[in-house]
Amino acid sequence: MSTSTVKPPKLAIIAGQGPLPIALANAAKAAGRDVFIVALEGESDRAIERFPHVWLPIGAMGRFLKLLKDEACEEIVLIGPIVRPDLSKIRPDMVGLKLLPRFIRLLRQGDDGLLRGIVEFLEKDHGFRVVAPEQVSADLRAPAGVLTKASPTTAQQADIERAVTVLDALGPLDVGQAVAVCRGVVLAVEASEGTDAMLDRIATLGSTIRGTTDARDGVLVKQPKTGQERRIDLPTIGVQTVDKAAAAGLAGIVVEAGGALIYDVTETIRTANAHGLFIIGLASDKSGPAS
Amino acid sequence: MSTSTVKPPKLAIIAGQGPLPIALANAAKAAGRDVFIVALEGESDRAIERFPHVWLPIGAMGRFLKLLKDEACEEIVLIGPIVRPDLSKIRPDMVGLKLLPRFIRLLRQGDDGLLRGIVEFLEKDHGFRVVAPEQVSADLRAPAGVLTKASPTTAQQADIERAVTVLDALGPLDVGQAVAVCRGVVLAVEASEGTDAMLDRIATLGSTIRGTTDARDGVLVKQPKTGQERRIDLPTIGVQTVDKAAAAGLAGIVVEAGGALIYDVTETIRTANAHGLFIIGLASDKSGPAS
Repeated sequence: MSTSTVKPPKLAIIAGQGPLPIALANAAKAAGRDVFIVALEGESDRAIERFPHVWLPIGAMGRFLKLLKDEACEEIVLIGPIVRPDLSKIRPDMVGLKLLPRFIRLLRQGDDGLLRGIVEFLEKDHGFRVVAPEQVSADLRAPAGVLTKASPTTAQQADIERAVTVLDALGPLDVGQAVAVCRGVVLAVEASEGTDAMLDRIATLGSTIRGTTDARDGVLVKQPKTGQERRIDLPTIGVQTVDKAAAAGLAGIVVEAGGALIYDVTETIRTANAHGLFIIGLASDKSGPAS
Repeated sequence: MSTSTVKPPKLAIIAGQGPLPIALANAAKAAGRDVFIVALEGESDRAIERFPHVWLPIGAMGRFLKLLKDEACEEIVLIGPIVRPDLSKIRPDMVGLKLLPRFIRLLRQGDDGLLRGIVEFLEKDHGFRVVAPEQVSADLRAPAGVLTKASPTTAQQADIERAVTVLDALGPLDVGQAVAVCRGVVLAVEASEGTDAMLDRIATLGSTIRGTTDARDGVLVKQPKTGQERRIDLPTIGVQTVDKAAAAGLAGIVVEAGGALIYDVTETIRTANAHGLFIIGLASDKSGPAS
C-alpha cells in the first residue's frame, strides 16, 4: 500500500464472451495491476464477478464513461467476442441516445470499421488509451516456432502456404481471419460464423477430402486481416480451438507469431500434444512468396 | 428412322447427384437427341434409369471407355455434383488400375486441376468432345436481367458489388463460387461445403447481422472461378437454392448471365416470387469497378 514504485494505471477491461477476459484480469492482477471490469449484460461470463466490476447494458454510454472516469481508469482493453447488438434491444441512456446515430453507422460497417470507430471514440473523444491484451500480458501472445511435439509434413507445409495465400487475398476485404486447407483443397473459409463453427463444419465434410482422427491431415491457419485494428480483434486460439481442430481431423494449427493470442498457452499445447496436432507460431514475412 | 436431316451425335451423360442430369437428359431428348447415361454407383439418382443407361462403379475405366465407343457416343457431358471418391473404395478394372496413379495425382489437386485433368483425359487421350450442359440445352443457361418481381435496393446493390469483389479476389485461388453479404458484412464464403450448406449456416447466424423472413436483406452471389473449366462445373441454382436463401433471410440471388445454370428456370423464378426474393442474371463486366 505504501510502495513507492510506479504502479501502472488502473486497467478497465470491457469483457466480451468466454474465458479470455478472466484470463486477462488474472494476468493483470498477477502483474500487480488494479483492474475494473465492465461486464456487458448478456455477454460476459458471470465468473468475471470475482473482480471489481459493474454490469452495464450495451448502450448505457453515459454511465459507462462516468464510471471509467470515477474509477480513474486511463487504459482500456476490449477482449472477448461480442455479438453485434440488435438495435431494437439497445437501451441507451441520454448520452447513448445522442451517440446512437454514430454507432448505427458504425454497426452497418464491417468489423474493421466498427472496431476502428470504437477505438476512435474512446481515444480521441474521451482521452482513454486503448491497449492490446498482449500489452497487458505478454504471456497471451503466440510465441514463434513449432510449439508442439508434432510438426508438419512437406505436404502440410504446402497446405499452410496455400492457406496463407487465400488469407492474404482476403485480408484487405474484411472477410475473416481463418482458412483451412487439406491436400491442396480449401476446406473452409471463415466469415461471420467464427472459427469454432468453421471447424465444426469441416468435421461434417466427406472424409475423402479431409483428414480423420486416425490419419490427421490438413491445417487451420489464422492470421490478422490486413490493416485491421490489432488492439481489439487479434486472432485467438485456445484449448477449445485445438479440440475442434482435432475433431475435424486436422493435423495442425498455424498462427502468426505475435499476431495472435493463445488463451492458456500451456494447456493449449498440452491438449495439442495429446491429440498429436502441431501448433506453429509463424514469423510474418510479407516479402516472401506467400504475400 | 429414315429421316435425312442431320441428327446431332448421341450424347453420353455422366450423371452426378441430384436432378440436373435428368433435366439435361429430358432437354436433350426434347431436342431430338439420343442419350446414353453413365450412372455412377452411389452417386446418380435412380430416376435416371428411365433413359438408356448403365450403372458403373467409379474406377471401371476400361468398361466406361468401351461402352462409350460401343454406343457411338461422340460427345460427353458431365453434370451433377460428385463427391470426391474415397481411394479405398475405388474398384478399378485393368484399365482403371493403370490410370490410378494419374487420377490419384489429379484427386490431390483442387477442383479446377481435377476437372481439367478429366477433360484432357477424355478429349486428348480418347477423342471424345466434352460439351457444356448449356450447349445441349440453352434453356439451362441463366438469362440476363432481373428475372423476378422483386429487385434489389441501393444498399443491396452495394452488397452485390462487395460480394463480387470478394469472389474476384478468390477467383484465381480455386476456393469456391459463392459469397453472401448483408449490409456490408460478409456473412459466408463457400469452400468445400457447397452452397446449400453455406445457406443453411447463414440461417443460424445471429439475426442482427442478417435479414429475416420478415425483413429480407443480404444477397447470395454465385459466379465461376477465374479460369475454371466452365464446361463441367458452372455455378448452378434451382428451387432448392431459392428455398434455402429464403430461409436464411436473404433478399436475393445474383448469378452471372450465361455463366450459371438454372435448373428448372420457370419453377425457380416462381419460387423466388413466392418468397419475395429477387434473382438477377448479371452481365459480366470485368472492366467495371467490381473487378
